[in-house]
Amino acid sequence: MDILEIIEKKEKNEKLTKEELEFAVKGFLDGTIKDYQMSAFLTEIDLLGLSEEESIDLTNIMLNSGDKIKLDIKPLADKHSTGGVGDKTTLIVAPLVASLGVNVAKMSGRGLGHTGGTIDKLESIKGFKTEMTLKEFESQVKKIGIALVGQMGNLVPADKKIYALRDVTGTVDSIPLIASSVMSKKLASGADVIVLDLKVGGGALVENLEEAKELGGLMVKIGNMNGKNTACLLTNMDQPLGYAVGNSLEVLESIETLKGNGPEDLNELVIKLSSLMVSLSKNITLEEAKAKVKENLFNGKGYEKFEEWIEAQGGDIATLKVASKTKEIISKKEGYIKKIDALKIGKLARVLGAGRLTKEDIINHEVGILLNKKVGDKVSEGDRLLTVYYDDKEITDKEVLECFEITEEYVEKPNVIIDIIK
Amino acid sequence: MDILEIIEKKEKNEKLTKEELEFAVKGFLDGTIKDYQMSAFLTEIDLLGLSEEESIDLTNIMLNSGDKIKLDIKPLADKHSTGGVGDKTTLIVAPLVASLGVNVAKMSGRGLGHTGGTIDKLESIKGFKTEMTLKEFESQVKKIGIALVGQMGNLVPADKKIYALRDVTGTVDSIPLIASSVMSKKLASGADVIVLDLKVGGGALVENLEEAKELGGLMVKIGNMNGKNTACLLTNMDQPLGYAVGNSLEVLESIETLKGNGPEDLNELVIKLSSLMVSLSKNITLEEAKAKVKENLFNGKGYEKFEEWIEAQGGDIATLKVASKTKEIISKKEGYIKKIDALKIGKLARVLGAGRLTKEDIINHEVGILLNKKVGDKVSEGDRLLTVYYDDKEITDKEVLECFEITEEYVEKPNVIIDIIK
Repeated sequence: MDILEIIEKKEKNEKLTKEELEFAVKGFLDGTIKDYQMSAFLTEIDLLGLSEEESIDLTNIMLNSGDKIKLDIKPLADKHSTGGVGDKTTLIVAPLVASLGVNVAKMSGRGLGHTGGTIDKLESIKGFKTEMTLKEFESQVKKIGIALVGQMGNLVPADKKIYALRDVTGTVDSIPLIASSVMSKKLASGADVIVLDLKVGGGALVENLEEAKELGGLMVKIGNMNGKNTACLLTNMDQPLGYAVGNSLEVLESIETLKGNGPEDLNELVIKLSSLMVSLSKNITLEEAKAKVKENLFNGKGYEKFEEWIEAQGGDIATLKVASKTKEIISKKEGYIKKIDALKIGKLARVLGAGRLTKEDIINHEVGILLNKKVGDKVSEGDRLLTVYYDDKEITDKEVLECFEITEEYVEKPNVIIDIIK
Repeated sequence: MDILEIIEKKEKNEKLTKEELEFAVKGFLDGTIKDYQMSAFLTEIDLLGLSEEESIDLTNIMLNSGDKIKLDIKPLADKHSTGGVGDKTTLIVAPLVASLGVNVAKMSGRGLGHTGGTIDKLESIKGFKTEMTLKEFESQVKKIGIALVGQMGNLVPADKKIYALRDVTGTVDSIPLIASSVMSKKLASGADVIVLDLKVGGGALVENLEEAKELGGLMVKIGNMNGKNTACLLTNMDQPLGYAVGNSLEVLESIETLKGNGPEDLNELVIKLSSLMVSLSKNITLEEAKAKVKENLFNGKGYEKFEEWIEAQGGDIATLKVASKTKEIISKKEGYIKKIDALKIGKLARVLGAGRLTKEDIINHEVGILLNKKVGDKVSEGDRLLTVYYDDKEITDKEVLECFEITEEYVEKPNVIIDIIK
C-alpha cells in the first residue's frame, strides 16, 4: 500500500477500505506519511465526504490509536458540547445527574478561540484540582458519583495530530472529520451513555441546520454501533447561552442555576441534557427522567452535589471573584432585541482576557460580559444591555453595540432546542 | 490576506483574485505558507479546477517568480512534449527547422519515471556539452541557428517547488496545474513561437481525449494571450514512438530519420511539428511549410544541421555505442499486433538502466529496447518482436511479451496525430 495510491483512489471518490484508512492514519501518526500528504488526503475528505461506513471505520481506527479508559462503574454517562459562547452546561448537568445516581467521569478541555472550556471555568475556583491519577479519578467517582479532569492517559493520539493539521489547513468543517474526532474521544472515555450537544448557528462549528442534522445523525450512529446509548441535541447558538460569558461569571451563573434561579434558556437546555442522560442511563422514559431532573434542580440536591464535587477536588467556592472594574453598556434605541451575535460576544470576551488566541495565552478568570437582555426582550432607550467586567484590557461601547440588532417589530424568544436525534 | 481564508474561499469554489493566487504562490516560495497548507490548496485545485482566467493568472504569477530569458534573435521557436516513450522528436525537429532558418534556443530536461529526457539522450554522444553560459548559448544560436542546454538561470522557481510537492501529493494530473507549469516555463524561455506536443493515451500524462483537448486549448490560450504564436498537437501515445526506446538507440534512430529513413509514425510527427514551427515562425501556410520541411528531411540538409549542432556543442557522433549483449524476443503467436503497452515498455527500459526512478540514479546510455513490430503489423510465430540491448540488468521474456497484445483479426495502423489546436 502507498499513500499516493490512496490519495488517487479518493480523488476518483472510490470507497476506501478499512485497511487503507488505517494505513493513512497510522502512517501519519508514525511519521512515514508526511503532513503535506495527509493534508492532501484530508482536503479530499473535506471536499468529497466519506460514506457512513468509512466514517465509522475512521472513528474506530482513531479510537484504537491510543489508550482507552475502562472504569468498573455503572451507570456511567458522558456529555459533549461542540462549543458555544456562554456554554456552562457541564458545570450544572454533571452534578445534577450525579445527584440522581448517574455517574459522571468526565474529561474536559480548555477553551481556544471564541469559546470557553470547562476546565478554564472550573479553575476560576481557587484550589480546584484538574489533574488526578486514574486511580484517584475512579475512586472519587465511586465515592461521590462525579469527577472531572483535564487530560488523562494518551487518549486518541491520532485525533490530536490530525486536528492540529486540520486547524491550519482549512479542514475543520468537514462532517466526517468532526464526527470521527468527537466520537473517537467520547468512545475512548468509556461511558455507556453519550449525550451530544451540537450547536447550530452563527457562533457555532456548524452554521447550517441540514449539515447539523447530518453530523448529529452520523455521530449518534457511530455511538450506537459501538454499543453506546447515544443521543444528540441540536441547539441554538445564535445568541450566547444564559447571561454570563467569562469564567468566574459563568461559574456564578451555574451556581445560581443549580439553586433554581437560572435563566430560561439555560434551564431548558440543562433539563433536556440531564433528562436524556438519566433516561438513557436508567432506561426510563424521558418524561420520568425529566420529572426527577426538575425535582433535583429546584430542591437543592443538584447544588449539594456540586458543592460536594468541588470540595472533593479541593476547590473553595467562597474564593470566586469577578473583576472590580465594570462598565455598563446602555441601549441608544428602543425596540425588541433581534440578535445578539454570539461569535462577536465570544471574541470580545477573549479580548478582555477571558479566552485564548493561542494555547500559550494566560487567561484572566475574573473578566467577562454579563448580559442584561436576551433576544426577544424589549428595551427602552437608556436600558442597560450588558455589563463588561474588565481588568487591564478594554473594549469600546461601539464594539459591544455592534453585537446587538434592535428592531421596532416584536421579536419572539427563540427556542434553545432545535431538534433531538436518537 | 491569510492562506486559510484563501483555502476556505476555494473550498466554496469562489473565484480567486490574482492577488490571492499571488499571495499563495509567493508565500509558498518564501516559506511563510507551509507545504501542508499549499498541499491542501493544490488538492482543492485538483478536485475543483480553476477558471480560464485563474489559470492564466497563475501562469503569469509563476512566470514572474524568476528569471526570463531574452534573446535578440528572430524568428525564435520552441517545442515542448509532455513526455512519451521513445519520443526523440526534439533531436530531429530542432535541427530540421534550424536548417530552414527558424532559430531554436532550447532548454530541455532529464528523464524521470518511464519517459526519457532529451538531455539524457544527447549525453549518449561523448563530449556533448549540455551546460553553457547565456552568452555562449546566444552566440551559438546566432551562428548556427540552434543550441540546446539543460538548465540556465533561475527560471520559474515557483514551478520547481510546486511541482516537487504535486509529485508527492497526488496532484500531478490537474489540468490547470499542468497548463500553468508547462506554459510558465515555455514563456520564461523567450521563444516567439511555441509548439506543444501533448501525448494522449496509456503511457501519457493525460489518458482521456476530452481532458487532453481541454488542456491543449488552455495552454494555447495562455500562450496566445502572452503574445506568443502557440499551437498544440494531440498525439497518440498508445504505443512507443518509432522503434527505439533507450538513449543511444534513440539518437541512432533520430540520425536515420534525418537521413530520410525514419519510421512512418516518427516521420509523420516530426514533419507536422516542424511544419507548425516553420509556418508560425515565417508566417506562411502550413502546406508551404510542410513542403520545405519534407525537402530538408529528405535532401540531407536537416542532417547536416544536426552534425553542425552536435559538433558545435563538442559531441562526437562516431562515439555512439549500444550495449553489446542483446536478446531477441520472439512471438509465440500468429496474428496482428493490437497493442504495444508504451507504459510497460518505458518501465522495462528503465529497469535495464535507460531511465531513472529517482533523480540520483545513474543512467546507462547504451541499453534499451528496439522494436521490430508496431501496432497493425502482421506477425507469424517465430517472428522477432523486439531486441533487448542490456548490460548488468536483465528483463524476462515474459515481462516483454506482456507488453504485446496480438489478435487474429486485422488491426489498422493507428494515426499518430489525433488533433491539432491552434
